[in-house]
Amino acid sequence: MKDIAAVNVTEKILARASGRESVSPGDVIFADVDKAMVHDVSGPGVMKVFERISGQGVDTKKLWDPSKVWIAEDHFVPSADKISAGNIIKLQDFARNYGIRRHFKYGMGQYGICHTLSHEEALVLPGEVYVGGDSHTNTTGALGAFACGLGHTDMAYVLLYGKIWFKVPETVLLRLNGALPPHVMAKDYILRIIGDMGTDGGAYRTMQFAGTGITEMSVEGRLTLANMTTEAGAKNGIIEADKKTAGYLSSRGATGIKPVIGDDDAEYSEVFEYEGSEMEPLVAKPYSPENVSIVREAPSVELDKAYIGSCTGAKMEDLEAAARILKGRKVRIRTEVLPAAISIYRKAVERGLVGIFLDAGATVGPPTCGACCGAHMGVLGKGEVCISTTNRNFPGRMGDIESQTYLASPLVAAASAVTGKITDPRDLN
Amino acid sequence: MKDIAAVNVTEKILARASGRESVSPGDVIFADVDKAMVHDVSGPGVMKVFERISGQGVDTKKLWDPSKVWIAEDHFVPSADKISAGNIIKLQDFARNYGIRRHFKYGMGQYGICHTLSHEEALVLPGEVYVGGDSHTNTTGALGAFACGLGHTDMAYVLLYGKIWFKVPETVLLRLNGALPPHVMAKDYILRIIGDMGTDGGAYRTMQFAGTGITEMSVEGRLTLANMTTEAGAKNGIIEADKKTAGYLSSRGATGIKPVIGDDDAEYSEVFEYEGSEMEPLVAKPYSPENVSIVREAPSVELDKAYIGSCTGAKMEDLEAAARILKGRKVRIRTEVLPAAISIYRKAVERGLVGIFLDAGATVGPPTCGACCGAHMGVLGKGEVCISTTNRNFPGRMGDIESQTYLASPLVAAASAVTGKITDPRDLN
Repeated sequence: MKDIAAVNVTEKILARASGRESVSPGDVIFADVDKAMVHDVSGPGVMKVFERISGQGVDTKKLWDPSKVWIAEDHFVPSADKISAGNIIKLQDFARNYGIRRHFKYGMGQYGICHTLSHEEALVLPGEVYVGGDSHTNTTGALGAFACGLGHTDMAYVLLYGKIWFKVPETVLLRLNGALPPHVMAKDYILRIIGDMGTDGGAYRTMQFAGTGITEMSVEGRLTLANMTTEAGAKNGIIEADKKTAGYLSSRGATGIKPVIGDDDAEYSEVFEYEGSEMEPLVAKPYSPENVSIVREAPSVELDKAYIGSCTGAKMEDLEAAARILKGRKVRIRTEVLPAAISIYRKAVERGLVGIFLDAGATVGPPTCGACCGAHMGVLGKGEVCISTTNRNFPGRMGDIESQTYLASPLVAAASAVTGKITDPRDLN
Repeated sequence: MKDIAAVNVTEKILARASGRESVSPGDVIFADVDKAMVHDVSGPGVMKVFERISGQGVDTKKLWDPSKVWIAEDHFVPSADKISAGNIIKLQDFARNYGIRRHFKYGMGQYGICHTLSHEEALVLPGEVYVGGDSHTNTTGALGAFACGLGHTDMAYVLLYGKIWFKVPETVLLRLNGALPPHVMAKDYILRIIGDMGTDGGAYRTMQFAGTGITEMSVEGRLTLANMTTEAGAKNGIIEADKKTAGYLSSRGATGIKPVIGDDDAEYSEVFEYEGSEMEPLVAKPYSPENVSIVREAPSVELDKAYIGSCTGAKMEDLEAAARILKGRKVRIRTEVLPAAISIYRKAVERGLVGIFLDAGATVGPPTCGACCGAHMGVLGKGEVCISTTNRNFPGRMGDIESQTYLASPLVAAASAVTGKITDPRDLN
């Protein structure tokens, strides 16, 4: 019997997907894809390549497997202009032509940000290979899947053949020890890590999170960690599925959950350790997610807007955290709360959170990526300063090239909305 | 003693405002303005003229009376792009520079569509002269005020001097007899009237509504009537204030309400009579509000979207009407519900309407004029067909020049959302 090296969870998933007994970092493999996603920005581009490389005309046989593909309308909904309205029509025609039933349409029941739907709708299971036409596809790795973003050509290839090549990444293990204090969130944790590793610290590597800090952390907190591995340049972020993951997914209708776990003696290219108890509320200052500062040491700038939204910062727990701060208080700056999916919006209405936000003077909008990427629905003007629960603060990311974004947790963003300055939630009256 | 001719309510208001004992149709008068409004589209243009005709530099004395001016952010909020974000900053600077305190800012407490704020916030009282930088300023005439829209230059003049010229309009009296059946709304009534009079039938005339149909009608229903007098080309729409008006305004904090009533023997250039009991659910087909059809005789077209929003069709009663239809049902087409002001949004959450809309599969967004004027937040794509509670359906009004809009009441729009075709609410299962 051949001696098989111990492998970690990412390697185990990629070995299975490529039909090998084992894979090692650096191996170039051809892997079966389990699930694939495109949205209203990547979709039309992917479909154009799809038509080009598969030949003209609709032939349902051309598409690999419509039951494994879904379409999200999230970036330019509600449609911002005639072009985005046209893109939605293209998505609709493609879905109809090729029998893709899971088309999450704006204004027709459940829809939302693609990365949020992946977990809210239990679309991806532990151990699967999931690719999406969006850079933050990494998010879904928090469920114990191999999840990464692909460009248009690669996505079109996946839609045709259900396969794609990967170079097996090295894995960095981030061992998180112990629970976080109540005023600290997973967002602070990942900002700390990116601050330490830098925005290229994870370049083409896997960032795997483990330790008692993960065991203690909610699934939604884990999703925030994996989401922002993209900001460290990681190929994917991953967290081995456990009982919490299984419970989360089965409560959303998933069946046949079979977590994949790495070998105990798996090797990692680097290991970093963090103590949860040492974490503090942080912000990432303009213009990089690695430009991290402790909130209490952050510059005293006048804010124009607080944004509580996006796949990173508008899950149910994110809204609950913001509501704890905003309940009975008033915002001093423009404050926008956008739940990341309709299912979350519905719960937020039911549990009184939307009422709390409106009473505080914030506005509440429908799920969209709009403001996060400066596309529409809350674009920053010249010189405006925003505190945001999103994941990127590059120049012009949320609007005018001369606007500024501070990335923060929902607790910090809400506390800052109340004071109009960057504020540690512990320092609120 | 001079013999003063009997005058109607519009003439009485304009006589008082111009310091005359009496005015007659055709008189050119110079009237004191009581209240003035600009929004994020008209505001920057008005401010540019204001600066040009008043001389450079900020001098608070230049502005007539900041306590009588308010600013609404409604058309391009949440900001759709860098230009609209810049316009919001211009409004903010102007408000600060000139001490305008009533600046209803998106994302900071109460804000909404300008014409909705006028009544929700009781900003205009019966007998006042109210001008706004928007064509549907006519809406507020339903409170018994003289209310009309002005262009940039005239608005700038008002901001400087608090006065403006008017040619006293002739008045058409629309006598509405008896209450409407429960499946018919004020929107159907005004569509019927515009269908009869044509879009130029009220050109530079006053459209005054009276009769038991008005006595029986809610203030919000009356606002719908006055709102769409703009679509008949009227200079203003007006309804004499009564106990309902006074109750509505005082419940919103207004004091010193002194209704102005026309003389019993006032003369009108034309009088039309309508019987409420004969009214039926209507739509205005593309591409004109006068292109009216009974819903049951309307063409059987496949709809892509139902829009329940705008100053015309997203007041509290409008949402309640839509909720009666949507409760326990599911929408078959993209359905967007946008309360016309945050105060309405808040009540809609509290009273369970937002929950009903989300359960039905519709989405709920923050107040904005965006989709109504095809600007952003729900632009129609090429070939798309929409049923809408808004007031205009000209070519390209809600998006692509090849899209189509059918204007309807909230009851008809909601019923049509459920079936995906233009539907009389009585014909729903």
